[in-house]
Amino acid sequence: MRGFCPVAVGRFRPTTVRPVETVIAEVLAANQAFYDAHERRDADAMAAVWEHSDRTVCIHPGWPILRTSAPILDSWRRIFIGPGRTQFIITNEAVSVDGDLAWVTVEENIVDAGATGTVAATNVFARHADGRWLMVLHHGSPVMG
Amino acid sequence: MRGFCPVAVGRFRPTTVRPVETVIAEVLAANQAFYDAHERRDADAMAAVWEHSDRTVCIHPGWPILRTSAPILDSWRRIFIGPGRTQFIITNEAVSVDGDLAWVTVEENIVDAGATGTVAATNVFARHADGRWLMVLHHGSPVMG
Repeated sequence: MRGFCPVAVGRFRPTTVRPVETVIAEVLAANQAFYDAHERRDADAMAAVWEHSDRTVCIHPGWPILRTSAPILDSWRRIFIGPGRTQFIITNEAVSVDGDLAWVTVEENIVDAGATGTVAATNVFARHADGRWLMVLHHGSPVMG
Repeated sequence: MRGFCPVAVGRFRPTTVRPVETVIAEVLAANQAFYDAHERRDADAMAAVWEHSDRTVCIHPGWPILRTSAPILDSWRRIFIGPGRTQFIITNEAVSVDGDLAWVTVEENIVDAGATGTVAATNVFARHADGRWLMVLHHGSPVMG
């Protein structure tokens, strides 16, 4: 795995020292939960992945910017009731953690009904007081051949 | 301006209390410096905008993921010596600050030589000990008509 992880331990809300590997594993699990919800087209699971706040941002491939939870979660519901069935093969994953925020970048290799393609994605997560990492930003863009 | 800014003051490296408006203005100035460097096609100014580290990520519209400073700054140099001249009208700007990290999303309305279009962009900045906000991530994607 690539990615530089300057975890400043003292900046975590619980002041206990936690290994960098543990923190990275937590972020990667949150990231995987996002793709699991997407593959299953599960709006409730997708809602559980996201932070519910006014600072959230989602930019689907080719879409304009969506901000705040209600429009973002509504967009996922509309995507999930639409046609098609999406499977991802996630490659080229890297994670960086800085305090209570983390950014993950991946390539989403999409195996859709009859269509294939690659999307470059940025996923930003924020760590909450209860230890959960919740998505605050998702940005996907098609990679041109 | 939209954007939710839960600035946890105690998490800033200097422990002095600083108004949220001041912090947001700093981030927006860093964001503007990025677009100024881009418009001027100034590779040195662009290098000054970015953090120089292994955790940096840049995804140009339609491009695959670039990571770490050397390939990212090289991509800007190649873009700047290429054809075309780019002007931006930045709209729909929002900034969120969380501790020493901030994410800005904007629409870049591009007025190029003979071409126009809109790019949705995510810009993430990290605050350094000397007070500078340096770019750690840029992701741009074309907005389809």
